[in-house]
Amino acid sequence: AQDPYPSRLPEERFLPRQDKTVWSQWRPDAPLTAQQADQFDRDGFLIVKDVFSAEEIEALMAESAALRGGERELMDGSVITEPGSDEVRTVFKLPEQSPLFNRLARDRRVAGVASFLLGDEVYVHQSRLNYKPGFTGKEFYWHSDFETWHAEDGMPRMRAISASLLLTDNDALNGPLMLMPGSHKEFIACAGETPDDNHKASLKKQEVGVPSHEALTKLASRHGITAATGKAGTLVFFDCNTMHGSNGNITPFSRSNAFFVFNAMSNRLEEPFGAKKARPDFLAERGEVQALEVAAGKLV
Amino acid sequence: AQDPYPSRLPEERFLPRQDKTVWSQWRPDAPLTAQQADQFDRDGFLIVKDVFSAEEIEALMAESAALRGGERELMDGSVITEPGSDEVRTVFKLPEQSPLFNRLARDRRVAGVASFLLGDEVYVHQSRLNYKPGFTGKEFYWHSDFETWHAEDGMPRMRAISASLLLTDNDALNGPLMLMPGSHKEFIACAGETPDDNHKASLKKQEVGVPSHEALTKLASRHGITAATGKAGTLVFFDCNTMHGSNGNITPFSRSNAFFVFNAMSNRLEEPFGAKKARPDFLAERGEVQALEVAAGKLV
Repeated sequence: AQDPYPSRLPEERFLPRQDKTVWSQWRPDAPLTAQQADQFDRDGFLIVKDVFSAEEIEALMAESAALRGGERELMDGSVITEPGSDEVRTVFKLPEQSPLFNRLARDRRVAGVASFLLGDEVYVHQSRLNYKPGFTGKEFYWHSDFETWHAEDGMPRMRAISASLLLTDNDALNGPLMLMPGSHKEFIACAGETPDDNHKASLKKQEVGVPSHEALTKLASRHGITAATGKAGTLVFFDCNTMHGSNGNITPFSRSNAFFVFNAMSNRLEEPFGAKKARPDFLAERGEVQALEVAAGKLV
Repeated sequence: AQDPYPSRLPEERFLPRQDKTVWSQWRPDAPLTAQQADQFDRDGFLIVKDVFSAEEIEALMAESAALRGGERELMDGSVITEPGSDEVRTVFKLPEQSPLFNRLARDRRVAGVASFLLGDEVYVHQSRLNYKPGFTGKEFYWHSDFETWHAEDGMPRMRAISASLLLTDNDALNGPLMLMPGSHKEFIACAGETPDDNHKASLKKQEVGVPSHEALTKLASRHGITAATGKAGTLVFFDCNTMHGSNGNITPFSRSNAFFVFNAMSNRLEEPFGAKKARPDFLAERGEVQALEVAAGKLV
């Protein structure tokens, strides 16, 4: 069968999405409202406020500080630092390294929503704690996650959702996540071949697998750009193919979030579709996976 | 007499402002409302919308494109390019190179307002057309203009005002000017000695004469940060000592403005207060200057 989402081609192309965005029929016992489900379907993302209590947020922030602070022994290769500094930018493999983040990942308000939208049981494809410092926080250029996950990790179809829980207040000025609403409905097949070990460079600065200025101008003119702003505790879900990025941040206000990618059990990884070698495990879970057991009730 | 605003010292210090911000008593024939004058006094800046007609904005945008497009011969050394590219980032000496921008500088809505607020006749201390491209626009770090103008150009007192006319729509996401309201009431004496020919590096990236992270965190917590957003045609006035900067811009939307610094005739430049050699003319007018003849009515 032909790959419906070829990329890393000699020329950039816009291809229609071949997969649904919302895979379940809404029903009254769903973990989100019908309006929220429709919004996710239309925009490719959903911003949810006030779903966690102040105590829950406080506990998550304390756990995050402990993980970043060096007082906890972390798995080899699970930490990335800011270019040109020691500041921790990312800690991968959250559920494996923290009981509280493990519980968060499985929460009905998080995995429950993802599982409903994907119409399947889910597992954690990737997880990380992101920290963008004040003053020197670098930009993260526009990309569709799916483009990379398909080409470099072997994710077959568009049936995965990211959930980002804001652990700091985010406004438009401190480098928030920016999304192009509706951009998930087209796949941008990117130009250029994947270099070996691309992920080592691309985690710090994305160079391959990104759309051209022309393509991004077209998308932004058509769809506009929305910033995922909100107080700490705001939860942002976005489809694996939604075009997103973030500006740098010279304000003194740092930005942090806990990030989980949920993949449908039926969408487990195969061989990469556009690279010679799959990326390492902390970026894309490819071992034996188990469906998450969704947990209801408070975290703490 | 002792310098009231020493800087480039062994240690950073917060010093009280020794000068007024608004130097005139408001009167009914003033070129701005009493409320606007009060706002400028309190915040150190003022954002004014809808003072230019669509025709005026259109003419200014066309003139700006002509100046940046290479079709006009420009004065030696008056053009600065984006780091790592040929894109024109700045064109200096606007009134000298363009009759329309000359007229704009002298406009009652621009120079008239500055002259009223400064309680004196004014001249153009510096002028430039700024262009920050989409996708790759770099940040401009926090600084007080006066700190540099005093230390490196020999501007004696805080009696100068910048006026920036937006020539593109600016929202919070495409790297707008950010200001800290009320920050103009303190002078941050910066640490570090001025290197020779500092301006050659500082026009691309400011390294000396900038406050510490600690000082900026204190200022931002106390005053907050406001983005000068608005449609093309929005006019932003800010005091020479207001702390400001801008983030980089990965959006496709470029940002452009025409920028004039008006200095009070009574505040003409002397020898630099914190550098061995004064900066060149296109950054700080130090020749014979003439008070601007303020012009009323439409530009075109």
